[in-house]
Amino acid sequence: MQLKYASRMEHMSGNAIRDIFKLLSNPDIISFAGGNPAASALRDEYVAQLADQVLKKDGKRILQYGATEGYPPLFESIAQFVRTAGIQVNPSQVLPVTGSTQAMDLFCKVMIDPGDVILVEEPTFLGAMHVMKLFQADIKTIKMDADGTIPEDLEEKIKKYHPKFVYIIPTFQNPTGRTLPVERRKKIAQIAAKYETLILEDDPYRDLRYEGEALPAIRSFDESGYVIYLSSFSKTISPGLRVGAILAPAELHRKLVICKQGSDLHTPTLNQAIVDAYLRGGLLFDHMKEALASYGAQMNKMLDMLSIFPEGVKCVRPQGGLFIWLDLPEHIDAGKLLPTAAQNGVAYVAGTHFYAGGGHANTMRLNFSNAPLDKIEKGMNILAQTLKNA
Amino acid sequence: MQLKYASRMEHMSGNAIRDIFKLLSNPDIISFAGGNPAASALRDEYVAQLADQVLKKDGKRILQYGATEGYPPLFESIAQFVRTAGIQVNPSQVLPVTGSTQAMDLFCKVMIDPGDVILVEEPTFLGAMHVMKLFQADIKTIKMDADGTIPEDLEEKIKKYHPKFVYIIPTFQNPTGRTLPVERRKKIAQIAAKYETLILEDDPYRDLRYEGEALPAIRSFDESGYVIYLSSFSKTISPGLRVGAILAPAELHRKLVICKQGSDLHTPTLNQAIVDAYLRGGLLFDHMKEALASYGAQMNKMLDMLSIFPEGVKCVRPQGGLFIWLDLPEHIDAGKLLPTAAQNGVAYVAGTHFYAGGGHANTMRLNFSNAPLDKIEKGMNILAQTLKNA
Repeated sequence: MQLKYASRMEHMSGNAIRDIFKLLSNPDIISFAGGNPAASALRDEYVAQLADQVLKKDGKRILQYGATEGYPPLFESIAQFVRTAGIQVNPSQVLPVTGSTQAMDLFCKVMIDPGDVILVEEPTFLGAMHVMKLFQADIKTIKMDADGTIPEDLEEKIKKYHPKFVYIIPTFQNPTGRTLPVERRKKIAQIAAKYETLILEDDPYRDLRYEGEALPAIRSFDESGYVIYLSSFSKTISPGLRVGAILAPAELHRKLVICKQGSDLHTPTLNQAIVDAYLRGGLLFDHMKEALASYGAQMNKMLDMLSIFPEGVKCVRPQGGLFIWLDLPEHIDAGKLLPTAAQNGVAYVAGTHFYAGGGHANTMRLNFSNAPLDKIEKGMNILAQTLKNA
Repeated sequence: MQLKYASRMEHMSGNAIRDIFKLLSNPDIISFAGGNPAASALRDEYVAQLADQVLKKDGKRILQYGATEGYPPLFESIAQFVRTAGIQVNPSQVLPVTGSTQAMDLFCKVMIDPGDVILVEEPTFLGAMHVMKLFQADIKTIKMDADGTIPEDLEEKIKKYHPKFVYIIPTFQNPTGRTLPVERRKKIAQIAAKYETLILEDDPYRDLRYEGEALPAIRSFDESGYVIYLSSFSKTISPGLRVGAILAPAELHRKLVICKQGSDLHTPTLNQAIVDAYLRGGLLFDHMKEALASYGAQMNKMLDMLSIFPEGVKCVRPQGGLFIWLDLPEHIDAGKLLPTAAQNGVAYVAGTHFYAGGGHANTMRLNFSNAPLDKIEKGMNILAQTLKNA
């Protein structure tokens, strides 16, 4: 059996993180890979209660076909929810999606022809690049510093490449943990308007802040309509429910709906109704307090443990999110070192996967949310030793 | 704000049925449009009980990120379930999807470059064509008679067009209600093997049989690996849960997984676990007995009412499914007539939408599952009168 696949499949391999998951079936390995919420942050009893409640109240509607545009009560609750990011949006511009990965898929489907340029931060979330590659986009990069994307470089690259859109993770960026200061956010919104260039602002980590003050979204400074906002409940309520949202002006919203009709018809209504009830219950931020305290302690523990790492390991301290990012001495190749590290009992994601052009072998991403303090201590000890021997 | 969308969006309008849904917000209209299960067939209390049960038993795993390959217990239950269609499959070849629309999206993503030919039955499910058009496929058609796809024409068209794949709905076809006899199923499996051509067998209606004997799937006669089978629980358990499955050999399965990593990461685990529990509970066919009896009576009522329709209206009697299909006298344009019919109080889907090349204005699809007997009688009276006046 020999099949001729579509040309988009030619250079596609599996998403590195997804495939690492499968390799990590050994429960003895301390995993700093992945970006999973802690099991303790998943409110299974509360979700069970909400599932029961919404099915008893609205079961016939929930189990029937729904509109592609989504479950109407959820438009309202999401429009309300994003006010915490400074965003005022008409509920009719809120499109619930099956996780924000789907939003990226739909957005690329609407916008991207093979060879079209997308600008991304360097480094950026590999899952987003996986989608872009499936649409055969030409991925170009914007320079970052310790404060994230550099607006001047963004402007220059827009002039140079005329991208179809720009992908930015403004808060506790994946993988670097960096956060754009408010002045840069304003500047980026102005650049979007000035160059009539779409910015896709992906903001799943914003509520995972352990220090400092929350910042308004780039979208909150946008009056042009060119800033499109992605929200997700995967880090705050549950990734397994697969509910996110994309906020887009009417014409673009309609195009996204036409593509979603051909993707999954609609996001499962039960999941939308559970998230709606969760938000309306008003307990989200209450429920998160415990997780935030715990994640904050885990982040600090991981950062503290860097003191025993070999000289030349660098890290910009994040104020939240799920990840810390390490620059290692030049001679270390984190990808090549991974099998040894795993054999020693610790796993991470090699940083090279987050670079559109590969390279940067001496970087790695560490997740701290999914390992308790004692495991972080133990895992970081192992990792420090592994790096010293490298 | 003026955006340059991808070229695939140029000729895309909304899926006609999805858009009709929105027009039918008037509850006084008797709708024979859509393909909804009856509300009474949706076991909301049972699903609520299962949701509670699976969340209590396995909540932490259900709410966490899952593997793109799906929720492992569900592979087993689906492999077991498709045995009723005569299919023996290794559970590792079962990929749960977010409704069978997603299977079509993933399959096109893996296989289709712009301009590639897909062969479909004429007429066929418009939702499937909506997906194909988003991938800029060149849709060519196979002739049907009262027994569905004509194998000789299929063979001729394969030789002529060398399609990337052939899309066939073998049982109670949407929109015609026609069913392929067992000899044609065997023949089609042989053709797939002989010409090394993929057949995508979409079989969501097979368990909605009100008369006659169940037939084995085309896939059950396939030893070549070229017949890919789609299953769906939208018509039997709930469309709102969005759970289906695609059965594919290892290499193709892996390609589908790579695309699914970039679509929604994984099908929501809660929904997979509910369907798994539903199947393991062993009550599916018990629960369906009542719905099947009711749907059968509704189908018969609708067919009986055709006796009052104007001369020249033709229909091939189905043995199950959700639809009957009418050929109307040449002078009637079902699309143009729809606003009048809706004003009179009845709705349907104009048949032209099910033809890849349009035309065939004098055809319509009627759904009988979602209207009780008295509404069918009333609606068919209105429709008969509307046609007489046309």
